[in-house]
Amino acid sequence: LVSQDLDLEVLNSVMGQLEASRIQENLRELSREPHLASSARDEALVQLLLQRWRDETSGLDAAETTTYEVLLSFPSQEQPNLVTVVDPNGNVFFSCRQREENLTGEQGGPDVVPPYAAYAPPGTPQGRLVYANRGSEEDFKELWTQGIELNGTIALTRYGGVGRGAKAVNAASYGVAGVLVYTDPADINDGQSLPNETFPHSWGLPPSGVERGSYFEYFGDPLTPYLPATHSSFRLDPASASGFPPIPSQPIGFEDAKVLLCNLQGNLAPDTWQGALGCDYRLGPGFRPDGEFQADSQVNMSVYNRLELRNSSNVLGIIRGAVEPDRYVLYGNHRDSWVHGAVDPSSGTAVLLELSRVLGTLLKKGTWRPRRSIVLASWGAEEFGLIGSTEFTEEFFSKLQERTVAYINVDISVFANASLRVQGTPPVQSVVFSSTKQIPAPGRGGLSIYDNWVQHFNRSSSVYGLVPSLGTLGAGSDYAPFLHFLGITSMDIAYTYDRSKTSARIYPTYHTAFDTFDYVDKFVDPGFSCHRAVAQTAGSVLLRLSDSLFLPLNISDYTETLRAFLQAAEQDLGALLGQHSISLGPLVSAVEKFEEAAAALSQRVLALQESSPDPLQVRMLNDQLMLLERTFLNPRAFPEERYYSHVLWVPRTGSVATFPGLANAYSRARDTAPGSAAWAEVQNQLSIVVAALEGATATLRPVTDL
Amino acid sequence: LVSQDLDLEVLNSVMGQLEASRIQENLRELSREPHLASSARDEALVQLLLQRWRDETSGLDAAETTTYEVLLSFPSQEQPNLVTVVDPNGNVFFSCRQREENLTGEQGGPDVVPPYAAYAPPGTPQGRLVYANRGSEEDFKELWTQGIELNGTIALTRYGGVGRGAKAVNAASYGVAGVLVYTDPADINDGQSLPNETFPHSWGLPPSGVERGSYFEYFGDPLTPYLPATHSSFRLDPASASGFPPIPSQPIGFEDAKVLLCNLQGNLAPDTWQGALGCDYRLGPGFRPDGEFQADSQVNMSVYNRLELRNSSNVLGIIRGAVEPDRYVLYGNHRDSWVHGAVDPSSGTAVLLELSRVLGTLLKKGTWRPRRSIVLASWGAEEFGLIGSTEFTEEFFSKLQERTVAYINVDISVFANASLRVQGTPPVQSVVFSSTKQIPAPGRGGLSIYDNWVQHFNRSSSVYGLVPSLGTLGAGSDYAPFLHFLGITSMDIAYTYDRSKTSARIYPTYHTAFDTFDYVDKFVDPGFSCHRAVAQTAGSVLLRLSDSLFLPLNISDYTETLRAFLQAAEQDLGALLGQHSISLGPLVSAVEKFEEAAAALSQRVLALQESSPDPLQVRMLNDQLMLLERTFLNPRAFPEERYYSHVLWVPRTGSVATFPGLANAYSRARDTAPGSAAWAEVQNQLSIVVAALEGATATLRPVTDL
Ligand SMILES: [Ca+2]
Ligand SMILES: [Ca+2]
Ligand SMILES: [Zn+2]
Ligand SMILES: [Zn+2]
Ligand SMILES: [Zn+2]
Ligand SMILES: [Zn+2]
Repeated sequence: LVSQDLDLEVLNSVMGQLEASRIQENLRELSREPHLASSARDEALVQLLLQRWRDETSGLDAAETTTYEVLLSFPSQEQPNLVTVVDPNGNVFFSCRQREENLTGEQGGPDVVPPYAAYAPPGTPQGRLVYANRGSEEDFKELWTQGIELNGTIALTRYGGVGRGAKAVNAASYGVAGVLVYTDPADINDGQSLPNETFPHSWGLPPSGVERGSYFEYFGDPLTPYLPATHSSFRLDPASASGFPPIPSQPIGFEDAKVLLCNLQGNLAPDTWQGALGCDYRLGPGFRPDGEFQADSQVNMSVYNRLELRNSSNVLGIIRGAVEPDRYVLYGNHRDSWVHGAVDPSSGTAVLLELSRVLGTLLKKGTWRPRRSIVLASWGAEEFGLIGSTEFTEEFFSKLQERTVAYINVDISVFANASLRVQGTPPVQSVVFSSTKQIPAPGRGGLSIYDNWVQHFNRSSSVYGLVPSLGTLGAGSDYAPFLHFLGITSMDIAYTYDRSKTSARIYPTYHTAFDTFDYVDKFVDPGFSCHRAVAQTAGSVLLRLSDSLFLPLNISDYTETLRAFLQAAEQDLGALLGQHSISLGPLVSAVEKFEEAAAALSQRVLALQESSPDPLQVRMLNDQLMLLERTFLNPRAFPEERYYSHVLWVPRTGSVATFPGLANAYSRARDTAPGSAAWAEVQNQLSIVVAALEGATATLRPVTDL
Repeated sequence: LVSQDLDLEVLNSVMGQLEASRIQENLRELSREPHLASSARDEALVQLLLQRWRDETSGLDAAETTTYEVLLSFPSQEQPNLVTVVDPNGNVFFSCRQREENLTGEQGGPDVVPPYAAYAPPGTPQGRLVYANRGSEEDFKELWTQGIELNGTIALTRYGGVGRGAKAVNAASYGVAGVLVYTDPADINDGQSLPNETFPHSWGLPPSGVERGSYFEYFGDPLTPYLPATHSSFRLDPASASGFPPIPSQPIGFEDAKVLLCNLQGNLAPDTWQGALGCDYRLGPGFRPDGEFQADSQVNMSVYNRLELRNSSNVLGIIRGAVEPDRYVLYGNHRDSWVHGAVDPSSGTAVLLELSRVLGTLLKKGTWRPRRSIVLASWGAEEFGLIGSTEFTEEFFSKLQERTVAYINVDISVFANASLRVQGTPPVQSVVFSSTKQIPAPGRGGLSIYDNWVQHFNRSSSVYGLVPSLGTLGAGSDYAPFLHFLGITSMDIAYTYDRSKTSARIYPTYHTAFDTFDYVDKFVDPGFSCHRAVAQTAGSVLLRLSDSLFLPLNISDYTETLRAFLQAAEQDLGALLGQHSISLGPLVSAVEKFEEAAAALSQRVLALQESSPDPLQVRMLNDQLMLLERTFLNPRAFPEERYYSHVLWVPRTGSVATFPGLANAYSRARDTAPGSAAWAEVQNQLSIVVAALEGATATLRPVTDL
């Protein structure tokens, strides 16, 4: 029993039992109604999940909910948000749509939340319109450089480039009074914009489609940073909470954006600012006198968003480990959507449910119980800022940090049907590769997912040669608190685009009322074979992590990342650092020592696999593998970055792909004088990463080394 | 093998082999010369330790040093510090001693560092003298209330009450220019002060004796908070580092203090400010015209202390665990002294060496190897602020946090020969009780250490009835970084006073040049039987922690502490909290849930002990016990408190013995208006401790509970 190891028959049986048609039926049910966080339908899906996970023939050992009282943001039902063009006499000359066009009968119900910018403050700013491209700092600086008066204007921006909230923050810093955000057909539809070129005629975004989203800068419940949002928890006063957009903001469709943008006067926007609305984009301010609007017309935004404390639930299910029940492999996805959310997140939840059915059936039959515990999670209120998962990590911080082997996230399982795409920390590469080499790629006649993947996304590894390229994890879904706050090895798995066929920012109906079951069924993954491929990939990774006697985490694969970071630092920062008497020598040495210790540990694992090890020897090595990621946490390294403690993955600004704390400090210091506080901070950040690497190395060495 | 458990024969054999005479000889060698941190003799003792721990017949498996480059503070050899009385014409009328009197031939050598206040800044303030009792905030407020002009004065204070550095901080906040500190015979000698009443005639402090000490407010190397002080580490600019005394400070003996204090003019000091110098203590400012000094004489302080970067080493030795080498029981003491340091710290080091000899001999004979690894440590530069141990915890943070079962500290092993005294966190109570019940108390004719102890220090436990009372751990020795920064269960063990016989603050020659081998041999522990008793106690605890199959940590004993904290909160804070709408209900509930989970876990341990458990089941429960203390850490709870992260043991100001974060926030809020930020912080601290307790409870529950 204590030597229980991965059973390939069980693995193959699970792979074989995962059914595309059941995923399809799961998705049909999950996306039948809009299920915005904390809505009645969201609560109904909590019950659906509980029922599935408590099923006597296909359920798990146990399932429970954890509920938090969190601050969400909704548009007013009584006073819908409105964007209009007002002539100098105060007459409303033009109004933007308040809802998307009801093209398939699913865009019209009372549960379809109108487009809005969650957490944008209420207000009714009015002013001349300017066009600000993607609303980055550089974009507003460009307008300012061109002498355009921004104070009191309404800025029309397009999605992409920077985060949603950042557009409002940047705008406000230039005195802009309100921000409109639209999706340009150039960015989402490969330029196509006509009704008959878009959904329901193709996968393209219809002209009235609007991307909703959270404009909150951080993640987690805004009122309870670092504390679980229990009923009795201390809460910040919303008025003093930080991270909300400073000015009213509202997203609109490109149908309406075109009317506004194509009537602007002023300088022609730079080439890279042009889009596919079929006119020259000008900067404003204000409308041209020969256009559709009277000269001196202004844009009025009426935003009536409200903050509300709401209950939001996570659903947790567990399969108890037979041998090491105190080691957890976590697998999760959010449940809440903006509207029907067929792709986001229900494509992932449909996979989660099919995987839990297959595993649960084996479990209830008594033919299988994993070596380690498996915890499945359906998170609440992700769309508002990863709230359910973050509160969970706050509530169970110690327990999760002590015991979690890895976190697997499958949010949108199928963006498109071309290739696997995996983001993760380096130790997961090997288990993902092993898994995907054994699974056929949909529609590729027996080619493996791995072989298909390496054709789409690859890199030349100094260790392995040409391999699929893993992406890095930002904060785009519920893995963020697990990786950045808890230091847990994490990954995010999906099927995605052929980048030679589309340059869409994301699948076109993302966060709109057109993200429906039919959209998936007809355009994203007809036949659901890619959904099944993701279920198989995630399922195989899950089983390997939970059942293998030796954890299939190749910590040596961190070395390649560290070497690349180091090389970038030497090449791009080294000269100027040297001029400021900051030596990269200790960092070089720390990376070398890490490499050596990681390689030696991998050798010890191999040697032990050849012997008949006692269970505590295996556990010892597995703990070294499991806890490596934890050793990179330093909760004091980046005091201004909420939740970000992982010294290798804190968000990096600037273009040099190196150790992010060092890169960020460097870019703040580079234009300051020798001896400045900013240069001292560069040395501090260098010492922080060296200390983290040396601390990590110490945990990889033989445990009785002094 | 995997079920290896404590062998009582081995335990008894160790108890029997610990020899008083060998401890005596260790002490003779260790205290032969002054061994101030980083001195040549300190380095020689590093070699002595390495040699002992690498001995082929009585050494450990391995021994190494770790060396840090740390900021120490020393008096100038060229310009000795000097305190004088200067008459209005600038003539020096009186000078305090610059060295202690050479009473035994050991107070005169070049390696005896003159008395000084480490880290006090250089400077030559001169002003009228005031007497400020113990230099607390209240003491200076009292002087201010009495209308005494403090600006530009020199304040004479006595040791005790508040920390060394705090006297200077408080003084400076009232404009005082320099601080003198002396030890009053009332506080150290039970009033005796004559040469023939004191050492070498008794254990009393001679009139010229001066307590040296660190006046640095924090612990750890002052220039590298949270980073190990490696050669290449980022260092703060000393000018901007915090925690140093703001004004020149200097300690003096009571012989000199008497001359100054008994000549003061002004109001009679309050009763509680009076001491045993044989005169009425007056407040000043300045000297009385009918005394020894000319009217308007001032006190001049010439302080020439210098900060220096020095190498300081720890010595680490290891006995590799046979079954769970990745679980560490740590046992340590500092090595550096102020002068000869026979009591502080060599009495502890002498015990450490004897224990290592006995264990090493068993090990080399092949008759014993512990289940878990034992790590012995000799820390450097403790006297300057726990520097060696703190840097060690910074360098090996992750490794130690993951794997350390407990830290045992034996600094001064024998303060006096009356009774055991143990400070520790609640889970160590049971193993200390088990150990001490089996060891005879010196000189008590077969009475156990436990039975003798309970006569001296006891409390009425709601669970156990009358038991010895464990003290709580502050930051007085090297356990501080292990407990407060790493969250490791810790304890400090010593033999101490009969409080009915002396009210001395501490043993009288503490930190003076009179703390010599003869002092110990003649007055502290003739025959060294108490040293042996401490060796036996610490040895038994060490063996039980390292060898027991089930960790002998009774985590249920935390419940009594939590209940007491809760009761104090309800009784003393509850009413006013209620008026501010802050409910203790969630805290009550959190304590109840903790109690329940802890009791249930203890039951599961008992049940498993009755069965024949597999090794991973035992490991699982042991990990729950080991990691409990870790779950109380919150590195963001007290941002202004360097290193203090343990929410139950952060320093508490104020008199209510309750949850310290809550108590501190409460005392800052109590005089503020409803709705103030201070009252919000009370609610925040309440939520922090509730979240910590609930997080801890989650780790105690069965590992597959959701
Ligand atoms: Ca929270
Ligand atoms: Ca340090
Ligand atoms: Zn999503
Ligand atoms: Zn989304
Ligand atoms: Zn000491
Ligand atoms: Zn000391």
